[in-house]
Amino acid sequence: MGLATTFAGSGSGFVSGCGRMTLIIYILRIGGGINMLYFENDYAEGAAPAVLQALIDSNMEHLPGYGEDRYSQAAADKIRTAMACPDATVKFITGGTQTNALALDLLLQPYEGVIAPDTAHINTHEAGAIELTGHKVLPQPSKLGKIDAATIEQFLTAWISDGSHEHMVQPGMVYLTFPTEYGTLYTADELRAIATVCRQHDLRLYIDGARLAYGLAASNDVTLPLLAQLCDAFYIGGTKCGALAGEALVFTRPDGVPAHLVNRIKQHGALVAKGRLLGVQFGVLFTDGLYEQLGKHALRMADNLRRALVANGIPRFIESPTNQQFPVVSTSQQAQLAQNVRFSVWGKYDDDHTVIRLATSWATTEDDVTALAKELQRIGA
Amino acid sequence: MGLATTFAGSGSGFVSGCGRMTLIIYILRIGGGINMLYFENDYAEGAAPAVLQALIDSNMEHLPGYGEDRYSQAAADKIRTAMACPDATVKFITGGTQTNALALDLLLQPYEGVIAPDTAHINTHEAGAIELTGHKVLPQPSKLGKIDAATIEQFLTAWISDGSHEHMVQPGMVYLTFPTEYGTLYTADELRAIATVCRQHDLRLYIDGARLAYGLAASNDVTLPLLAQLCDAFYIGGTKCGALAGEALVFTRPDGVPAHLVNRIKQHGALVAKGRLLGVQFGVLFTDGLYEQLGKHALRMADNLRRALVANGIPRFIESPTNQQFPVVSTSQQAQLAQNVRFSVWGKYDDDHTVIRLATSWATTEDDVTALAKELQRIGA
Amino acid sequence: MGLATTFAGSGSGFVSGCGRMTLIIYILRIGGGINMLYFENDYAEGAAPAVLQALIDSNMEHLPGYGEDRYSQAAADKIRTAMACPDATVKFITGGTQTNALALDLLLQPYEGVIAPDTAHINTHEAGAIELTGHKVLPQPSKLGKIDAATIEQFLTAWISDGSHEHMVQPGMVYLTFPTEYGTLYTADELRAIATVCRQHDLRLYIDGARLAYGLAASNDVTLPLLAQLCDAFYIGGTKCGALAGEALVFTRPDGVPAHLVNRIKQHGALVAKGRLLGVQFGVLFTDGLYEQLGKHALRMADNLRRALVANGIPRFIESPTNQQFPVVSTSQQAQLAQNVRFSVWGKYDDDHTVIRLATSWATTEDDVTALAKELQRIGA
Amino acid sequence: MGLATTFAGSGSGFVSGCGRMTLIIYILRIGGGINMLYFENDYAEGAAPAVLQALIDSNMEHLPGYGEDRYSQAAADKIRTAMACPDATVKFITGGTQTNALALDLLLQPYEGVIAPDTAHINTHEAGAIELTGHKVLPQPSKLGKIDAATIEQFLTAWISDGSHEHMVQPGMVYLTFPTEYGTLYTADELRAIATVCRQHDLRLYIDGARLAYGLAASNDVTLPLLAQLCDAFYIGGTKCGALAGEALVFTRPDGVPAHLVNRIKQHGALVAKGRLLGVQFGVLFTDGLYEQLGKHALRMADNLRRALVANGIPRFIESPTNQQFPVVSTSQQAQLAQNVRFSVWGKYDDDHTVIRLATSWATTEDDVTALAKELQRIGA
Repeated sequence: MGLATTFAGSGSGFVSGCGRMTLIIYILRIGGGINMLYFENDYAEGAAPAVLQALIDSNMEHLPGYGEDRYSQAAADKIRTAMACPDATVKFITGGTQTNALALDLLLQPYEGVIAPDTAHINTHEAGAIELTGHKVLPQPSKLGKIDAATIEQFLTAWISDGSHEHMVQPGMVYLTFPTEYGTLYTADELRAIATVCRQHDLRLYIDGARLAYGLAASNDVTLPLLAQLCDAFYIGGTKCGALAGEALVFTRPDGVPAHLVNRIKQHGALVAKGRLLGVQFGVLFTDGLYEQLGKHALRMADNLRRALVANGIPRFIESPTNQQFPVVSTSQQAQLAQNVRFSVWGKYDDDHTVIRLATSWATTEDDVTALAKELQRIGA
Repeated sequence: MGLATTFAGSGSGFVSGCGRMTLIIYILRIGGGINMLYFENDYAEGAAPAVLQALIDSNMEHLPGYGEDRYSQAAADKIRTAMACPDATVKFITGGTQTNALALDLLLQPYEGVIAPDTAHINTHEAGAIELTGHKVLPQPSKLGKIDAATIEQFLTAWISDGSHEHMVQPGMVYLTFPTEYGTLYTADELRAIATVCRQHDLRLYIDGARLAYGLAASNDVTLPLLAQLCDAFYIGGTKCGALAGEALVFTRPDGVPAHLVNRIKQHGALVAKGRLLGVQFGVLFTDGLYEQLGKHALRMADNLRRALVANGIPRFIESPTNQQFPVVSTSQQAQLAQNVRFSVWGKYDDDHTVIRLATSWATTEDDVTALAKELQRIGA
Repeated sequence: MGLATTFAGSGSGFVSGCGRMTLIIYILRIGGGINMLYFENDYAEGAAPAVLQALIDSNMEHLPGYGEDRYSQAAADKIRTAMACPDATVKFITGGTQTNALALDLLLQPYEGVIAPDTAHINTHEAGAIELTGHKVLPQPSKLGKIDAATIEQFLTAWISDGSHEHMVQPGMVYLTFPTEYGTLYTADELRAIATVCRQHDLRLYIDGARLAYGLAASNDVTLPLLAQLCDAFYIGGTKCGALAGEALVFTRPDGVPAHLVNRIKQHGALVAKGRLLGVQFGVLFTDGLYEQLGKHALRMADNLRRALVANGIPRFIESPTNQQFPVVSTSQQAQLAQNVRFSVWGKYDDDHTVIRLATSWATTEDDVTALAKELQRIGA
Repeated sequence: MGLATTFAGSGSGFVSGCGRMTLIIYILRIGGGINMLYFENDYAEGAAPAVLQALIDSNMEHLPGYGEDRYSQAAADKIRTAMACPDATVKFITGGTQTNALALDLLLQPYEGVIAPDTAHINTHEAGAIELTGHKVLPQPSKLGKIDAATIEQFLTAWISDGSHEHMVQPGMVYLTFPTEYGTLYTADELRAIATVCRQHDLRLYIDGARLAYGLAASNDVTLPLLAQLCDAFYIGGTKCGALAGEALVFTRPDGVPAHLVNRIKQHGALVAKGRLLGVQFGVLFTDGLYEQLGKHALRMADNLRRALVANGIPRFIESPTNQQFPVVSTSQQAQLAQNVRFSVWGKYDDDHTVIRLATSWATTEDDVTALAKELQRIGA
């Protein structure tokens, strides 16, 4: 039984013994959702119920601060197991931009910059947080959010052949998002090729996994152990994948852990006093495969959504395999859809059409998608 | 009925209709607490029960991100009302060091530094987070954590009389903690005198209120409206005062709000995607005087604790009026106390004595203090 | 009579009463230059003779430090006069990268970035000095080093239409080089169009004039007064235009001068104790049109060089109107030329050809170019 | 009699064949100095004559940029020889604050701070340049500008015993000035003791030698080789010791040279295009002991000055053994002295007395001091 039926009000409850809370949630959804279907983004709700329950259960325990609590330690252990990477270091950080800015600053030497697709989040939508730490983003041409090994190799070849290295920012890292900002995915082979280039040129490889649950669920061959094997560091997104807040920053290699790590996290203002808040949540996300299940649920919902788009003749701007779908709608369709559905506007397609974004998440129910399908039918050709 | 009685084990439950959760908490306390009394710090538990309940209740609501949700807006309104400062701007930030580094960077010009007591948290225990943003801390002599207006005036007079201003860091702000790191408090008159010096010299006044609930509860004359009136900015601590995480950063004057505030919070990596996490909590803390009650509860517990110290002839290193108490114990007393009580070691007093810290909080129960009193009696002279 | 004939050993001397020094120079040139003709760059010699003489003449004067000396004041006055911009503020800085990093940091708000051609020096060859101050370079497509108003407008339109400004770096400035890194020039109309876009969007306009003397000498319609009128700030290059070291940073508008300017220059480590070193030199450069003459001399030498290239059928990669010329030579031509001439390698043209750079400067003599012409004839088709 | 005879002590002039220039200098001194004796500071004139002559002699040589020229290489060699430290790395930087900010940033890890006397230049008069690079200055109590090994040891012991290192700035370096801001000197034993503490605690030792020539000349036992042996890095001041501009930054140990050193100097905006400007000057300063002679000359002048103070009953605030003397004068004496002498005001002594500073330098003549002595006699008791 999936989460969806639970959300729909199944009497048995999705977390044993937590019936009342489910009821509250149910009522709230009725109250807030009857008129508007919500597909605007994947961070509109709080925590996945089991995650919330764990916060409730542990609330009055006396625990040490700053990530020294047993929940944070156990969560790190569980993540190491899930990654099949027993020597990894795992630290929990509150948010994604903070994690990126921190990780890049710690993994780059002060004179190094980071190669990234020009559409990368760090290059476009983090308000210059990377540059605030003194590092340059070296943007490269991308396709639908992805950069390929050949492009990186080409940049490095040009860089090497330039005689004025002492006047140039030295590339120290490749940054990728998985899934990308366009909902697209790298294949295992694509990542392996990039990792090979990185190793040949002594670059670190870092992956921003803000929506990692959805990427892993959608990919045929990319797994947590593969990421741990290929990357020097990456983060497992919690905020958009079932947690109230939190990202798990992973350093995969013992010799790749920045010195005085906790001290530097503190210096960056990123050390959470009640580290339990993050540790408890990630402990649950990595128990009994919940992180994977939340991702797969969202993907099933996205599949249903995709089928409804196809069935109703509504084209998609991008063939996104993940939880974000990008239909192209006419101006009148957009207006009609907006009557009952919350969505994001992605950009203008042409004078008469707009690309919108419909996002599913761990919190999307089958009923939500069924209702959305009816709306799509209503506005379809 | 206040929280205190709830904590003492009243069968009726402390949040109406939430019996099960209380039960869990109760059991956990029994499980974790029977052997060790916990007075180590004031951030060892999760959220005050009503705060946690609000997170539960709002969990599945679809809400906009980045602090645009109705809870964050309402919480800001409630804080403005509590401060009698209708034009204030309130932003919720995850942690204290992050709040200080952010606020100081935004309120200082790039060439300005911040005057602070030499014992100030930003000068001693924030790992250089202020300097990481490029600003110098200008430490001044202090007494038990406090700086006075005359010391500031003296520094400014010397600064003004120096002919080489262009070669010096310009003082732009006075930073204080309330309560201080020593648990001491400024009186309203002391704060007024400092504020007057600040205005005369065009310095901003900023107060770090990490433990503000306990300071307000202990003070005879310092109130939230007074702080709002005297300061240019300050923060209302949540993490140590009943929240899972979060601090409310307040800019009191419309003309003192940094331009492009949200953009800069994002640039600092301090913009929380699920701003609701903080908004919901502060909304509850500032409903029906909960923040005040939590503070007063901790103070009552500290009063009981102080009485127990006096009764058992255990001297106090500092006359702290707030939730942190600093007994001086002999080496053998320390060892005995450690058998059943968790506390912090503050520092060496002499070869045979140590200053320890016993902290109460919103989570401390009367039973806890009663049990501690017995321990103190056991180790007393 | 130009500088060239002076350098070649004319008996009359170009600076009255300085015969001996000229002789030394002559001898040194014979000694060092007989075998190799020098066209590698435009900063290979010390100072223009008159500039050096002024350093000699003022050497033992007791002068105040940090730019407060009468030479620096007079030099600023002369530059203001030359720019027809009586209210400008002029500060002398040692080097170009330092000037750019300083000026951009002072003119940008901490949350702002700088729009620049992707080939801009600050984006490619300043080792990330701009990012070290926390600001992002926003690179835009360019042609032969130039960006146009339409490209800037297009970027700004896209930026404005994006709904997530709070997550984006705010454009605060347009940075250009004049001449560009490719030796090309903007016309007055092109600069006016860019300035108009800047004003419409409240962006500052800044021009990097590392080789300004050569740009002004080559341009039909761009003058110092025009630059002062259009820009918010720019710098007049000294290091590559006749000085031992030094750039004159100009803030054209009284209300556009960063607050506490000298203090911030000091904070950046860019305040020279013996400011006289720069003031004396710029005073001479802006006396009797020397800066203009030095530029025109180099341009005449470049014209001669260009004619020699044409006469010998050696194609040019770029139609550069300034002191840098970019011939395309075959591999064998390159090897032959390298026997007697020092030049820079610019890049590969095709498998058999290379783009090289030949630079003239204030220090290039007619004899140098005549000798180079013979070399070109020798290697020509 | 001009400077030349003073320096070389022989009738023939100190730089062969430079008669004319000396004459110019002499005339200028007559013109500018007849009315006012100049003892205000030690950076009021240009370059020592031999230094200037070398700039003249090399002016038209074609030399590579960025410190790759043969003069810079030779100067580094000469300094290595003078230090008896053949493996040292030497880089020439334009100014003192820039050198300090650069060196400390490169030698400190991002999470480290620098221990310094509270009166240290970096803590008081560099406008926060160190903090701008993200590092905290950890000021310690000092006496007349000096810190001692015991004070450092005490700070480190307290630091080590503190349990919250992860929340604290880690000490990474000790910074000293030699001579200090008060003109005082460390003995060899004092420096050895400090160096021992540094090695025991894995701290780097850095010495700011802005006025090193005067310190070496005054010290009984501190030599360049000793500094090279004890320090990890230090700088040999040029600006205040005979150069137009420039400081020689020395990294004494091959394994202590920051990686990608030139790249980082460039990133800091401190890489001079015409590195020859600095290389030529330091080459002369370290030829035939000129740097030492310039220092000794200034010290002889200071001795004469000190004797004149004693002879005329004018007390000194500090027993400074170097080129800065700090007489205490009454208000009326100060006014009288100011009629014919330029000096600095150091600070108020009491209601009726002021501490002033009289500085000698390489440029001070015996006639200057003789004339000053007459003035002191005139105002003396």
